[in-house]
Amino acid sequence: MSSPDRPQQSTDLTVTAAAAAAAPHQPRTELAVSPTERFATRTAGMTASEIRALFAVASRPEVVSLAGGMPNLAALPLQSLSSEVADLVTQDGLMALQYGSAQGVPVLREQICDVMREEGIEGDPNDVVVTVGSQMALDLLTRIFIDPGDVVLAEGPSYVGALGSFAAYQARVVHVAMDEHGLVPERLTEALRSLAAQGITPKFLYTIPNFHNPAGVTLAVERRPRILDICRDFGVMVIEDNPYGLLGFTGEVYPALRSIDADVIYLGSFSKTFASGLRVGWALVPPLVRDRLVLAAESATLCPPSFTQMLVSRYLAHHDWRSQVKTFTENYRERRDAMLAALETHLPEGCSWNVPDGGFFVWLTVPEGVDTKAMLPRAVTARVAYASGTGFYADGFGSRQLRLSFCYPTPERITEGVRRLAAVLEAELDVVRTFGTSARTELTRGPQSPSPDTT
Amino acid sequence: MSSPDRPQQSTDLTVTAAAAAAAPHQPRTELAVSPTERFATRTAGMTASEIRALFAVASRPEVVSLAGGMPNLAALPLQSLSSEVADLVTQDGLMALQYGSAQGVPVLREQICDVMREEGIEGDPNDVVVTVGSQMALDLLTRIFIDPGDVVLAEGPSYVGALGSFAAYQARVVHVAMDEHGLVPERLTEALRSLAAQGITPKFLYTIPNFHNPAGVTLAVERRPRILDICRDFGVMVIEDNPYGLLGFTGEVYPALRSIDADVIYLGSFSKTFASGLRVGWALVPPLVRDRLVLAAESATLCPPSFTQMLVSRYLAHHDWRSQVKTFTENYRERRDAMLAALETHLPEGCSWNVPDGGFFVWLTVPEGVDTKAMLPRAVTARVAYASGTGFYADGFGSRQLRLSFCYPTPERITEGVRRLAAVLEAELDVVRTFGTSARTELTRGPQSPSPDTT
Repeated sequence: MSSPDRPQQSTDLTVTAAAAAAAPHQPRTELAVSPTERFATRTAGMTASEIRALFAVASRPEVVSLAGGMPNLAALPLQSLSSEVADLVTQDGLMALQYGSAQGVPVLREQICDVMREEGIEGDPNDVVVTVGSQMALDLLTRIFIDPGDVVLAEGPSYVGALGSFAAYQARVVHVAMDEHGLVPERLTEALRSLAAQGITPKFLYTIPNFHNPAGVTLAVERRPRILDICRDFGVMVIEDNPYGLLGFTGEVYPALRSIDADVIYLGSFSKTFASGLRVGWALVPPLVRDRLVLAAESATLCPPSFTQMLVSRYLAHHDWRSQVKTFTENYRERRDAMLAALETHLPEGCSWNVPDGGFFVWLTVPEGVDTKAMLPRAVTARVAYASGTGFYADGFGSRQLRLSFCYPTPERITEGVRRLAAVLEAELDVVRTFGTSARTELTRGPQSPSPDTT
Repeated sequence: MSSPDRPQQSTDLTVTAAAAAAAPHQPRTELAVSPTERFATRTAGMTASEIRALFAVASRPEVVSLAGGMPNLAALPLQSLSSEVADLVTQDGLMALQYGSAQGVPVLREQICDVMREEGIEGDPNDVVVTVGSQMALDLLTRIFIDPGDVVLAEGPSYVGALGSFAAYQARVVHVAMDEHGLVPERLTEALRSLAAQGITPKFLYTIPNFHNPAGVTLAVERRPRILDICRDFGVMVIEDNPYGLLGFTGEVYPALRSIDADVIYLGSFSKTFASGLRVGWALVPPLVRDRLVLAAESATLCPPSFTQMLVSRYLAHHDWRSQVKTFTENYRERRDAMLAALETHLPEGCSWNVPDGGFFVWLTVPEGVDTKAMLPRAVTARVAYASGTGFYADGFGSRQLRLSFCYPTPERITEGVRRLAAVLEAELDVVRTFGTSARTELTRGPQSPSPDTT
């Protein structure tokens, strides 16, 4: 009948015996590079983000961190969530603790379509792919669309996590400028014309239309169809990243780009409307993209956690999530107001910033001569942290900019943080008036001038 | 003091106005390829796994699925877990629901070192990177080590999820044969010599030493240092994937390769020892690899879910997890025994299989002439599903092999499934005796022979 212990067939080795015989065994005892250091070429573009390096220092309790983008979850109903998750385990535990579909839990994909309907999107649950945060969707889309050297367009500045994924897949990022109404259509056309003249069609435009991270601005409604028309004319796909869309302070919800054009790839997230620690995001994509995206997702994680998806699903079904978002938004608005008032009161002449109508961020431009990256260690010493602007550009721009987050600290802490930042800026400006720049760490590198650190 | 609505500086566009003026706007109204179909070259290697296509049909209740690798979680103490997760939310909710470190929750990384100590590994929590299942660790390691065309070694057959990641990053897989004692050192040396003769040093050997998926075999203890010596001699890194190591039926726990050589990259998972739906796995890596791996992980998901990590941490701290693993293992052993008995009783002459001492899988070789991939639709029609062998090879081998999983169904269902499989095999062998092959789907493609489907 059988021979259980018989060795398996093993004719699968692709090298031939003849080739093997021809090559004498030559052990390598001295390798130039250790076997664990033979990294792929793409790792050259993978560098620690400035923000990441900052988290460690900025997390000291005495530092007011205006750097991170952590949502403020204090308003979550923990007692009620505790019962919900307990029920999830007793009622559906064997499913919640088991592998699921690579595309995501079906009922959650239907609920996600309900959420997207808030912004005018009519999506099909079959075209939704649930991911481990929308970061994973963005990373996988980059994986399936970007060959090394391909060009992507992104606002300048842009989301640091997007720039990280683009760098990891060796994309070339061309930034397109924004103004207070978001991405400037004329600048987009210029960029596309210039690239076309070089024979280049970017793979996609990556854009954050609402309450931009880090710029805080929102794409004007009348610009939305224009942006889409331009991209269509030039044959460029659009990826719309919208984690903050429901976090507006005026009650207005802007129409998603995806609600105007069904070819737009839309990224959404529960990280800001519910809980970031569950890491549940999604992409809504055309069917052909979906099939590749699901394959890529399977390769990346097999499937997203069933447990967290089913918890989000229960939360959406059993809780007034819209009211919870409203509560979150009121908290953020109060913090935004505190930050704007403090900026107005304390910041020195020559600073400018935008007034965000939602989201988490104010984007600040400091007076000429001040280098926000060089200033950061001195700010942290003065017990306030921010994210310097260069991290939000792929091309080194942003040294006069910085991002301030008003999402997490209390209004009192925000006010104190801005007061400390203002004092640091005043000190920098004193140096600038004397030496023409505050980038002391730069100057000390060269021997041609006296070290400002000694003054 | 400030001008809040002043447009931002926007000198960041890398294209020049002159270049833009030189390129007239030429809308593309007829594109050869839609913008949403301009996929990266690497997607050519991304194809739906045979197993994945199977899951849909095999999930019908009337089908006995011996195809999937889902752990049997029925023995989990759901009531107790329900209280545990409820406490997690009330006591640590604001942390569990918040973003965490890209490397993973620190206390869990310490506990993971305790788990690895069971297999003789002395790891440093600072060198542990928590991932969304060990699949993610494998995928990210491939990302940071593999350039297109790089060679990796893997057992033949090998884990389908590994082959998927290798294909996604355009690695070339060279399979190395196993026998009933696992990977054959002589065949490894042959492969490496042959590659060295072509000037090729593989980036790594990917190996599953314990209760192999899909082959069911375990690497003999005396072979372990030999395999490591060979790899060291040829300058080849080793990635040890060990999801089943604690699921042995004899009580013996084998020493991990990582316990012998600290340069080995070790992958572990809670998917089989606790719950797959939480997607908590990890990699233990040398420090230099760790820094790149964390950067890649940050780009992939920002951070793994805090919630599921903290639930695993509480489970390890408050439950007798070793006793739970023992209970799981007893269930699997009972199922393994049922499968072996049924194979012995029902399978036709000419079949052979191994006797696994742990894990989830039996690897079956069928008589010559039978094509397991071609047979699969007929097996599903007969209400039994398996995973055909070709899915576990990168090179088309495996058409006479198939994988049977005994992890999930009850012993009675396993017996019934094998009985059905035996009947299908008998019918195939009838066809083989008449036509010389059972690969009817192949034959019907050509007009040169009468269609066996009409016989």
